[in-house]
Amino acid sequence: MLALTCGREPRLIGDHPPPERRRGEARLGLRLAGVCDTDLQLARGYMGFQGVLGHEFVADVVEADDATWVGRRVVADINAGCGACRECVENAGHHCARRTVLGILGRDGALAEEFVVPERCLVAVPDSVPDDCAVFAEPLAAAAHVLDELGSAEPAAIVLGDGKLGQLIARALVAAGVKVTLVGHHTEKLALAAAAGATTRLEAEIERETQVTDLVVEATGSASGLARALALVRPRGKVVLKTTVAGRLEVDFAPVVIHEVSIVGSRCGNMKRAIELLCHGAVDPRPLIAARYPLARADQALQHAARPGTLKVLVEGTPR
Amino acid sequence: MLALTCGREPRLIGDHPPPERRRGEARLGLRLAGVCDTDLQLARGYMGFQGVLGHEFVADVVEADDATWVGRRVVADINAGCGACRECVENAGHHCARRTVLGILGRDGALAEEFVVPERCLVAVPDSVPDDCAVFAEPLAAAAHVLDELGSAEPAAIVLGDGKLGQLIARALVAAGVKVTLVGHHTEKLALAAAAGATTRLEAEIERETQVTDLVVEATGSASGLARALALVRPRGKVVLKTTVAGRLEVDFAPVVIHEVSIVGSRCGNMKRAIELLCHGAVDPRPLIAARYPLARADQALQHAARPGTLKVLVEGTPR
Repeated sequence: MLALTCGREPRLIGDHPPPERRRGEARLGLRLAGVCDTDLQLARGYMGFQGVLGHEFVADVVEADDATWVGRRVVADINAGCGACRECVENAGHHCARRTVLGILGRDGALAEEFVVPERCLVAVPDSVPDDCAVFAEPLAAAAHVLDELGSAEPAAIVLGDGKLGQLIARALVAAGVKVTLVGHHTEKLALAAAAGATTRLEAEIERETQVTDLVVEATGSASGLARALALVRPRGKVVLKTTVAGRLEVDFAPVVIHEVSIVGSRCGNMKRAIELLCHGAVDPRPLIAARYPLARADQALQHAARPGTLKVLVEGTPR
Repeated sequence: MLALTCGREPRLIGDHPPPERRRGEARLGLRLAGVCDTDLQLARGYMGFQGVLGHEFVADVVEADDATWVGRRVVADINAGCGACRECVENAGHHCARRTVLGILGRDGALAEEFVVPERCLVAVPDSVPDDCAVFAEPLAAAAHVLDELGSAEPAAIVLGDGKLGQLIARALVAAGVKVTLVGHHTEKLALAAAAGATTRLEAEIERETQVTDLVVEATGSASGLARALALVRPRGKVVLKTTVAGRLEVDFAPVVIHEVSIVGSRCGNMKRAIELLCHGAVDPRPLIAARYPLARADQALQHAARPGTLKVLVEGTPR
């Protein structure tokens, strides 16, 4: 089958062996996948991942132990925990030490004709949510995970970064009634966020502002983004880091201590919450679609997604 | 009067003008002061402070608007907020943008025969607390502030750093029933912490351990300390930063995001809580006293405190 793999470099393979479905797993046929910055990092060697790329998708269930899943349109939690440890029992298994993560860690991903996912990770997609929206469920879940960091009073937040993730975070926060200011470099992207209900500012406009909000979400992944976030946050406030792109950054921690600021890492979210946001139309991510490629040109989709400033690039499977 | 000032370099002045007491302030006569690493930093130019050093003290009230204070033995919250802003009304004013901080920011400190402090900052010292304990109230308050970061279940913590602050943090946590492991380099200092009820480990013993606790307190102020803290903390756990000594550090933020760790700055604490801890004997900081100097040799006290590995150096005023 067709699959976009990540070995020493990303490679589109025409005769990749189809996945073996083990007990408890569902075999899925790809309808639509999204390319994420993490895919670009993995393709450059991040985490040493070798296998099929892709973790943002909507797919059809082709085969499953539980026959009621077969034929249904689904998304899935990409984290598959062991199911037995405390982390799995008490939480969602997102931090299970033995987890696999679809297309990222120990499990082939979704940029293929077919792939397998544990049945317990599946989330059904209602008919009211088109593929073009459902394919955003995974990054939207991660974006909406920021809501778990909100204080109770006067919800307001500044989101730094007008790229794919910043846009989804702004939308998830707006949908929850949070007063959002999205800060970016690109007027056309800020216009997209404004149309979705966010206040927008060019970065140059806020350069001298300090201690203006209790919650700043860093979605640029740059050293200057984190420094800006630490400048903008009020004493005892919170800076939520949403990207692993950052890697090693130099930070002046003296103000972090003096102002008693929290820096909080935030990764994956709840897929059901994402589907609910899409289902009720609270978030419409479709203006973020930049391009579409068939699976047979998935390598070109990756190249396109790597161009600076590109929003979401989609890869189309073959709906059954 | 005698005062140890911080200008271009620390200077002991014999004829420093006595402080002017303004309305709402109390004039205090020094009994005993402590030298803190922050004093050493200020003496090297940190924060550009110019004035009398010193913010750890126990003193006698010489003069005050409220005559009931006169003659009482006191410590004080070193942060003097404006008293009017939201931060002052709702919190302790520790983050008031217009605050002064005794011996650190906009207000002459305690390493002098006399100094002034707002009356609303004063905390009376019960007779049961000797000067040698009361002089630790300010750093102990900062140490006990870590308790505000504790989760509810199974309280346990690792404290990195066997210096003055790490020792007090370990004691404050032990007094609160937290299972504390203090990690350091010096067997004799670890023995002090063990005598106070902490489990102790040499840093070399924990080098390969990862994700072992939900709360790590970083009190070394070093880049390696923060990296070690991030290695030791469990997913979704918290690293509390307790020192401003650190300054600029390079950190790999990818694991912070992947494991959804929080890095939380923590500064000053509640002085009444510190006095209660000292009053009930829950914490006895006296084994941490390394040396005593009269105020007339306060410059030598500062030099002594700057020697690597020195615990608490005290400076004696003239009790009335």
